[in-house]
Parts: sequence; C-alpha cells; structure tokens
Amino acid sequence: MKEEYILPKGFLSSGIKGGIKKSKKFDTGLILSLNPCECVAFYTKNKLKSAHILYDKKVMNNEIFAIFANSGNANALNGKQGLIDLIKIIKAIAKNLKIKSSSIMAASTGKIALKMPVKNIIKNIPLLIKNLSKNDKNFPKAILTTDLKTKVVNEKIIIDGKQCTITGVAKGSGMISPNMATMLAFVLTDININKNLLKKAAFDCVKSSFNKITVDGDMSPNDTVIFLSNKMAGNKCIDKLDKNYDKFKKALFEICYKLAEKIVEDGEGVTKVVKIVIENAKTHKQAENISRQIANSLLVKTAFFGESLNPGRIISAAGATLENIDIGKIELKFNNVLIIKNGKLVAKNTKKAEKILKSKKITLTLNLKNGKISETLLTTDLSYNYVKINAAYS
Amino acid sequence: MKEEYILPKGFLSSGIKGGIKKSKKFDTGLILSLNPCECVAFYTKNKLKSAHILYDKKVMNNEIFAIFANSGNANALNGKQGLIDLIKIIKAIAKNLKIKSSSIMAASTGKIALKMPVKNIIKNIPLLIKNLSKNDKNFPKAILTTDLKTKVVNEKIIIDGKQCTITGVAKGSGMISPNMATMLAFVLTDININKNLLKKAAFDCVKSSFNKITVDGDMSPNDTVIFLSNKMAGNKCIDKLDKNYDKFKKALFEICYKLAEKIVEDGEGVTKVVKIVIENAKTHKQAENISRQIANSLLVKTAFFGESLNPGRIISAAGATLENIDIGKIELKFNNVLIIKNGKLVAKNTKKAEKILKSKKITLTLNLKNGKISETLLTTDLSYNYVKINAAYS
Repeated sequence: MKEEYILPKGFLSSGIKGGIKKSKKFDTGLILSLNPCECVAFYTKNKLKSAHILYDKKVMNNEIFAIFANSGNANALNGKQGLIDLIKIIKAIAKNLKIKSSSIMAASTGKIALKMPVKNIIKNIPLLIKNLSKNDKNFPKAILTTDLKTKVVNEKIIIDGKQCTITGVAKGSGMISPNMATMLAFVLTDININKNLLKKAAFDCVKSSFNKITVDGDMSPNDTVIFLSNKMAGNKCIDKLDKNYDKFKKALFEICYKLAEKIVEDGEGVTKVVKIVIENAKTHKQAENISRQIANSLLVKTAFFGESLNPGRIISAAGATLENIDIGKIELKFNNVLIIKNGKLVAKNTKKAEKILKSKKITLTLNLKNGKISETLLTTDLSYNYVKINAAYS
Repeated sequence: MKEEYILPKGFLSSGIKGGIKKSKKFDTGLILSLNPCECVAFYTKNKLKSAHILYDKKVMNNEIFAIFANSGNANALNGKQGLIDLIKIIKAIAKNLKIKSSSIMAASTGKIALKMPVKNIIKNIPLLIKNLSKNDKNFPKAILTTDLKTKVVNEKIIIDGKQCTITGVAKGSGMISPNMATMLAFVLTDININKNLLKKAAFDCVKSSFNKITVDGDMSPNDTVIFLSNKMAGNKCIDKLDKNYDKFKKALFEICYKLAEKIVEDGEGVTKVVKIVIENAKTHKQAENISRQIANSLLVKTAFFGESLNPGRIISAAGATLENIDIGKIELKFNNVLIIKNGKLVAKNTKKAEKILKSKKITLTLNLKNGKISETLLTTDLSYNYVKINAAYS
C-alpha cells in the first residue's frame, strides 16, 4: 500500500480554488470516469442531512460518471434552498460534460447554515473541467476543512492476471464519531466486480473502519463514503465469493482502515492516538457502548493529553454505561502493562504505565471477563488546540 | 433564601486540614446532630462505586446521628480494602463520639484509585470532634476538590408557628453529568416530617435539580446527596400532603436547585452557563436525549466558549440522537431571538444572536413541534481551562 494519489485506469480528477472558502484555498473538486461506474454509498444517520445526501440518494443507483465535491460549505441546514442550489450546480456540470445530471454524485463539507455561492461555483465549472487529469494532485486538497494533511492511499492487486488499482481519498478531522464523521471518503477502483459483491465488501469494510473511529463524539450531517468501480482493469468480473473476492476485499479493507486511521491521526488538536480494545464482552453492543463511553469521556481524553496516569477515569467511564459488568473482576492494560486487576490499582506497575503515556500511540485493553466478544475503537486525546480550533471555527 | 451556612437547630459541624490533600487544604469534615435523624440518600448509578456508597447503603435506613465527609481521596477503585479502610475510620469516630457506628453515614470525593490514609485520618479524629460547633464555617471547605467556591444555601420557613431551617451544602465542579455528578450534597433540616414524605419530597427535588445538570458528561463513582431531618424545630409532624408539605417541598426544591446551579456555575473552566430548554417534545425521554446530546457536544460547548454563532452545531447534535424529529419544522432561539426557523437560518437575526453569545448566562430554546413535553437542562461551555485542569488532575 502506498500513501499516494494515483488514479485507477479511466479516472480523471481536478481540484481548484473556487472562492467558496474566504481563505482562498482549494475548495472545489471533480472526479470523472471515462466508463460508467457501479456506485455504492454510505451516509450519516444524523436527522440533519446535508443537501448532497438527499440528492445522492435519488441518483446513487444509476450508472455514475462523476462526483462533484466541495469544502468550505456543508450545504446543511439551508432548508429546501440547499437542494435547489445543488441541483443548479449539478445541471451546469452535466451540461458542460455532456452527461446526464442523474449520473453525477455530490458531496459537501464545511460550515453549516451557509448558503452555497451558486453563481460563483457555476462560473468556475469550465476551469474545473479543464483541469481534469489522470495525473491530478489537487482533488485531495479540495475536500479539506480543518485537516492539516491530505489523506490518500493507493493499492495495486493482480486479479485474473490484470493489474487492478484501488485509490482512497478522504477528509475529516473533527465531528468524528459513530457512524462515520464529518468525513468524506471516495474509494475509486477499476476492478470489474458484480455490484452486489461490491456492496457487500464495501459495507463490511466501512463497518470496521470508518465506523470505528471517534474524535469528539459529534456526528456530522455530511458524512459520506462513496465507492465507484468502472471495470476498466479488464479482469473477468468477480461474481462470486471466491479467492479473487477475498483478495479484493482485503485490499479494500486496508484502504478504508488506513484512511480512517489518517482521519483520527489528523484529528483537531490531536497529540495522541489511543486504540481501545474491549475484550471478553458479553455482546457487541456492550463492547461498543463501553468503548465509545471511554473514547468520548472528556476526563479520559484530557488525562491522555496531560500524560497523567488516571486508570480510575477509564473504569469510571466503563461503569457509567450502566452495562452489567463486574468491576471487581476486570483488568486494564496500557500496552502490555497491567494497571488494574480485580478492581484495584497494580501499584508496582505505575512507573511503567506512566512511561507508556508519553508515547504518541497507546493501546488500552480492557478485559471485561464477561463473555467472548472483542471490539476495537480508535480515538484521540483532547488538547487546548481542539478547544481553540472549535471555539473559532464557525 | 440566603447564601449562608447557618446550621439548623441541633446540628453541629466541623472541618479541618487533615493531611489527606498534599496541598494541605481543608479535607476532613463532620456533621453531628444532637437528635437522631431521618435519613434519605441518593447515589450515582455508575457501576464503579466509592466504598462510602457500599457502606452507606447498609446503614442509611437506621437513625442517623452523623456524616463523615472527606475530599482529596475518592476511596473508589480500591477493591475490598476501600471498605475495610472506611469502616476503621467510622468505628474510630463512633468510639470518640460514643454513638453506634451504624448511625454514621460517610461521603468521599477526590482522586480515584488512591488508598485512604487511614492512620492519619484516625489520628485527627479528636481534633475533628473538638472543632464541632453550631457556628462552624469550615465544613463547606472540607468537601471541595477543584471547586473554586464553597456552595452553601439556607432557607427559613414557618411551619405550624415554628421556625424551621433547611441548610444545603455541596461540592462539585467536574465529572458533572446524568444522575448527579462528582458531587456531594448534604441537606440538613430541623423540620419534623414523616420519613416517607421526606423521601418523596427529596426524590422529586433531586430529579429536577441535581439530575438536570451536566458539565462534561462524565458520571462519577461518588455522587451522593444525603438529606437529614432531626425534627428539633418543634413543629407538629408533617404527615400528609397538605399545605405545610407543599411549603416545605417548595423550599427544599429551591435549596436543591440553587446548589445545582452553583455547581454548574463553578464547573471546571466554565465561562458561560447555558440553560437548554426543549419544548414540545414527544416524550420526556426524547427531550432528555436531545438536551443531553446538545449539552455534551464538544462542538456546541466550544462554540459557546468562542462566542461563535453556530446554530448548525446545535441542530446537528439534536439530529445525531436519531430521535424521530422533523428538522424542517423546528425552531431555535437564543434568549428571545429566533435564529433557526423551518430548518433554516434566520439571517436577519444573526447580529442580535451574536450579541447574546457575549453574555455569561444564555438560554437556548429548541421547539421540536413534535408533542407537548418540555424539559430543562443546565450546562456550560468548554474552555482551555477545563482541559488544563483535567490534564493535570490525577
């Protein structure tokens, strides 16, 4: 796997400074496939939904040729006007590209409750299209908001003697929580795969990657992951759960997990990434509840930021879920160091644990001794900078 | 109502610097009643419970003479040793006071997973008892942790021609969330009231005061509210739901609400107090879910800290509950200024709303137009100082 933006066969993209952001940074992007694509997409469960989600849901089952994406404006909480504005933009792109508007998907991210600068965007569409290139490097920049880095991943696999490419590009750094985040991710591939199998693989991969991260517990109205496959690699269509499917799914999962990890690492003000492993829970729901409660506890997050040994806050967060667990039995490890055993501090290990707290990546393992289920969640600490970034961003 | 610590008839208290805190501040307190008291108590629902809660639950139905309280050590996550240590302390107090140990309640707050300095505490018990006084001013200090201020309230009412006093004293400033908080509160009264009616009044008051505040969404293992009535005011026992009961309950509620408000106002790093009013919800659970999600959203809290107008974050938090609400219908007000109507920003009111954001107390009213239920929750912003305090406190 390479951390590079290399487009699969038949895909072009572009990114421009379209004037949506006051900062005059890249904010408008377009992906185009020369062949029609199978499309699979997943969206936020928030009841407040960006206009692009309402729109996409109507076209996502068509053959898709393009994705329009923008940052700097979430086009959420704009009432019916939001959808009207988006449709104007899509129609202008369709007209310029000479394709059906119902073959274009959209994704927006940025400030909520801000009217889309429709005229300005439409004015820039010819430039956006002119810049389309198979060697483009600007699309990944065009979808960023408070992100510090672009997030790109590329994997090549051989299926049926043909080289197939999978490319992932994502944005996201705050409002990162259950069921995706303020995150957009686009996964493009030239592989030839049956749509139902693409859907199955994508669903499984999203569940254990983008849906297993949290920065601040806030769920966004815009979260979107779109998978496109244009079948141009020339392999024989993958149409059953065989070795080729497994190979593709493994690569797809690695792409998704790596993007998810990049989102967490670039979380707003993040100084540490914490992997929470819940072991021996009774049910998936129990493991999920406990891992999220720990991950989103301000007291746990600030303790990690302060490199302050406070296992009590972790156990207290687990207890606060009201899940039926026996605190007297559970064990807590920081990396491989046991710090809580039978509901008590392992005092002789405090020095070792304090040392681990100084690292940038920490694994916290909570053994509930309550069943056989394990779950993992990636989260972050909470720093002054998180507060600073979010006190100012409006 | 006065914000003073005036003990009701027959109550004494004391507070000393007992050496539990490294900072050498007040940390050990005692309340004593000359008459036996009816006792009603409420505790955290966290599965991790301080030793004092396990202990209190065994004695709380007895006639109670005293409460031992300490700060600087939560006596939580200490395994069985926590309870053994506490019982040693209680027995030493009982011996010195010549009362039964089963007539003494206890409450601890402070650092988790720290062994109680039993010898030291026992050594100081004679001094603690010597300092008992009806004019004591130190007990309220002895229960503080990161609090900046003592929290005391006093109310006098006339029942049956007799003056009755209700005194409330509390601590709490972080880990403040559902079902109380890292908070201790003691409500003392000399009123003569039937135990079942005291229980009923106390239950109702706790529900709509201490259980309606949140600073950081973290639920503590130590939350405790204890009500004691020693019947020494000399009024005829209140034994039915009459005018006297109503008068008492009203005063009791005011005491509890004022203490709860003081806890929120003194929340760690708080610069603003935000009252969230949910109007026209379908059910209490819906109103509760939505108000808590808004109150505990880091993006909402940091926006208030930054005095940054971001109603989208509030609507997004409401939507993230997945409650069945129609975003296109709801209305949001900052104080009396309408800022969201029919799922859209009321642009002409943004200047007015921005002005409101500069005040220290803000009321946010979300009308769901979904039913007839209203709920109120008190919360705070999230500042650099919250992070600072909790990064260091371990």
